[in-house]
Amino acid sequence: MSIQFSILHKSTENHARLGVIKTAHGDMQTPAFMPVATAAAMKGLTPAQVRATGSQCILNNTLHLMLRPGDERVALLGGAHNFMRWSGPILTDSGGFQAFSMAAIRDIDDDGVTFKSFVDGARVRVTPERSIQAQNNIGADIIMAFDDCPPSAGAETSTARVELAIERSARWLERCNKAHARKSDQALFGIVQGGTSLELRARSLELTQQVDLPGYAIGGVAVGESTQAICDVVQFTASKLPEHKPRYLMGVGYAHDIVMAVAAGVDMFDCVLPTRNGRNGLVFTKHGPIRLRNAIHVADSEPIEANCDCETCAGGFSRAYLRHLFMAGEMLGPTLASIHNIRFYQRLLLDIRRAIGCNAWSSLKEAWPCLAASPQGLDGDTQ
Amino acid sequence: MSIQFSILHKSTENHARLGVIKTAHGDMQTPAFMPVATAAAMKGLTPAQVRATGSQCILNNTLHLMLRPGDERVALLGGAHNFMRWSGPILTDSGGFQAFSMAAIRDIDDDGVTFKSFVDGARVRVTPERSIQAQNNIGADIIMAFDDCPPSAGAETSTARVELAIERSARWLERCNKAHARKSDQALFGIVQGGTSLELRARSLELTQQVDLPGYAIGGVAVGESTQAICDVVQFTASKLPEHKPRYLMGVGYAHDIVMAVAAGVDMFDCVLPTRNGRNGLVFTKHGPIRLRNAIHVADSEPIEANCDCETCAGGFSRAYLRHLFMAGEMLGPTLASIHNIRFYQRLLLDIRRAIGCNAWSSLKEAWPCLAASPQGLDGDTQ
Repeated sequence: MSIQFSILHKSTENHARLGVIKTAHGDMQTPAFMPVATAAAMKGLTPAQVRATGSQCILNNTLHLMLRPGDERVALLGGAHNFMRWSGPILTDSGGFQAFSMAAIRDIDDDGVTFKSFVDGARVRVTPERSIQAQNNIGADIIMAFDDCPPSAGAETSTARVELAIERSARWLERCNKAHARKSDQALFGIVQGGTSLELRARSLELTQQVDLPGYAIGGVAVGESTQAICDVVQFTASKLPEHKPRYLMGVGYAHDIVMAVAAGVDMFDCVLPTRNGRNGLVFTKHGPIRLRNAIHVADSEPIEANCDCETCAGGFSRAYLRHLFMAGEMLGPTLASIHNIRFYQRLLLDIRRAIGCNAWSSLKEAWPCLAASPQGLDGDTQ
Repeated sequence: MSIQFSILHKSTENHARLGVIKTAHGDMQTPAFMPVATAAAMKGLTPAQVRATGSQCILNNTLHLMLRPGDERVALLGGAHNFMRWSGPILTDSGGFQAFSMAAIRDIDDDGVTFKSFVDGARVRVTPERSIQAQNNIGADIIMAFDDCPPSAGAETSTARVELAIERSARWLERCNKAHARKSDQALFGIVQGGTSLELRARSLELTQQVDLPGYAIGGVAVGESTQAICDVVQFTASKLPEHKPRYLMGVGYAHDIVMAVAAGVDMFDCVLPTRNGRNGLVFTKHGPIRLRNAIHVADSEPIEANCDCETCAGGFSRAYLRHLFMAGEMLGPTLASIHNIRFYQRLLLDIRRAIGCNAWSSLKEAWPCLAASPQGLDGDTQ
């Protein structure tokens, strides 16, 4: 078995589950938040600093590593774990989302996608087989299916296009599973799409679960739709995924979205928010976000958040010093802010796991006033 | 007493001394290398990471902190030690060198210097009194005299101009000493100038030592002159400084210059080379520098330097991974390279102290083949 998922406790109050995912590189207590180390590096943080945030599993982006330094290169250097010196679990995305969102798509057909590399402009072809080959080379503990993910139905995308994507993704999922050469140590997850339409989600759920896999993900969520729409889709989709397999909500997100999704039965999350916002001087607290560059912090000797146990707050770095670092363009600013933000998420997840274990869900909103406000961040791009 | 300097052992082979400088923030074993945390931040490194390199004392640049966030602000936030969370000794320069080299000088007269701020373009006036006030505010353990430091005599600067600078600096030194309000916990060092002329150095030595201070520095060295000229000036000047006070060679430099200067009796060094070169992907080894971006490292699973005990090499980060970080523009590249480079200097200084203690000076050149080659770095700017 590539991974083993056990449910340790089910909330008596909602659909939340406390669990553990065992991988060849260690355990992940769920619900879990996975920060994003795009190009096999958490921006500005050493693996030791990431570990100290309490992060158990991290994400690498397959497309980035495929284009630079090349997935074969990563394999020759011992796989992502050895390459970046992260000894814990790693998850890779399939490259699909980034091929569709970051790269200039040149051609998409039933066989795969051709796009222009954002590294050197070269023409790159990715098929389900190629994505899985790359993920086999990178060697993460959990890998993702390569799917057709056009923008959500709406202004830019017709319902017919989303329907086509769902049917095509189902065919691609079978090809992914067939191409997957490391089933003994890498768990392939399928992805449910369908945008905000519960009908399309139902169809995607049905097709995706036709392939028996160690876990399933919910994709295409929090890409601009309303909080209510996110909630409707997540509750509907999570409830129809297999109970004894991990459920992963991709690219989400804000604290309140995570809490909602956990209550709906989701087990895994990833998001670039803590690092991307940290790099830009936006840091999270239980009482809402703080812009470190704001003049109000110029003489503030307090840490970002009282009682926070992160290396930044516990280390005594003041808001005034952090503001100084950002104003002076010092790299240490992004590093210290990202450390705090990742730890903020891990503290939230610790508390979420505590609340599930104690059947004390309502205590969460008392302890985390920021959950009442939305959005927690000012930067709407969560991918 | 602000600091206490003790000589523990004098080499039987040359003028090198093994010593210790006791400060209110801990001891510094000499000869010592002090890395530069310009704006109260070692670029890309947390204080814990700096400490792990074995660095005992670090440098802050007064001009940078005076302009941003302001020295009064640093004082209100508890001084540089508390501001940047560095509990060990700190040394500040006077701002003189940077006012002359980085800023657009608008006016210089017998009273001080007026220049344009590189932060906001504002007109800034620095006098000896203002520099010392700023350094008293910043609160370093060792502070430097504010001197008139035009470029070395030569194409741009007449001998008459250097003579004027020496006489003026002597008058300014008296004003610095008079203005110094924290003599009980901050040690003011005078600076000997004079370019490559031993005659002018002798005059400056005489004038500078008319003020009785806890230590003296040699300035204006390694600003473009030949290795032989550096050697002549350092040997001449060091030999004429008080034996029982620390001698500090400012802004130097390459490994071979440091070794030469230690043999001449110098105790303290600072240089931006390890961090500036590290940021640019140039790393030092006992066998010479390495450009991490070079294609030759693309598949190299070896660390920067075998047997190096720095966080980067001992952590198992390969040259191939470091090259990837630099090619991908990842902040972690500069961080890991700077950690190695600072530790490289501290390993050299450890070995220098060992060689003095064992009267085994010649063993140094065997252990450090890079000392034979010059220059060790490809980046000539050492300030």
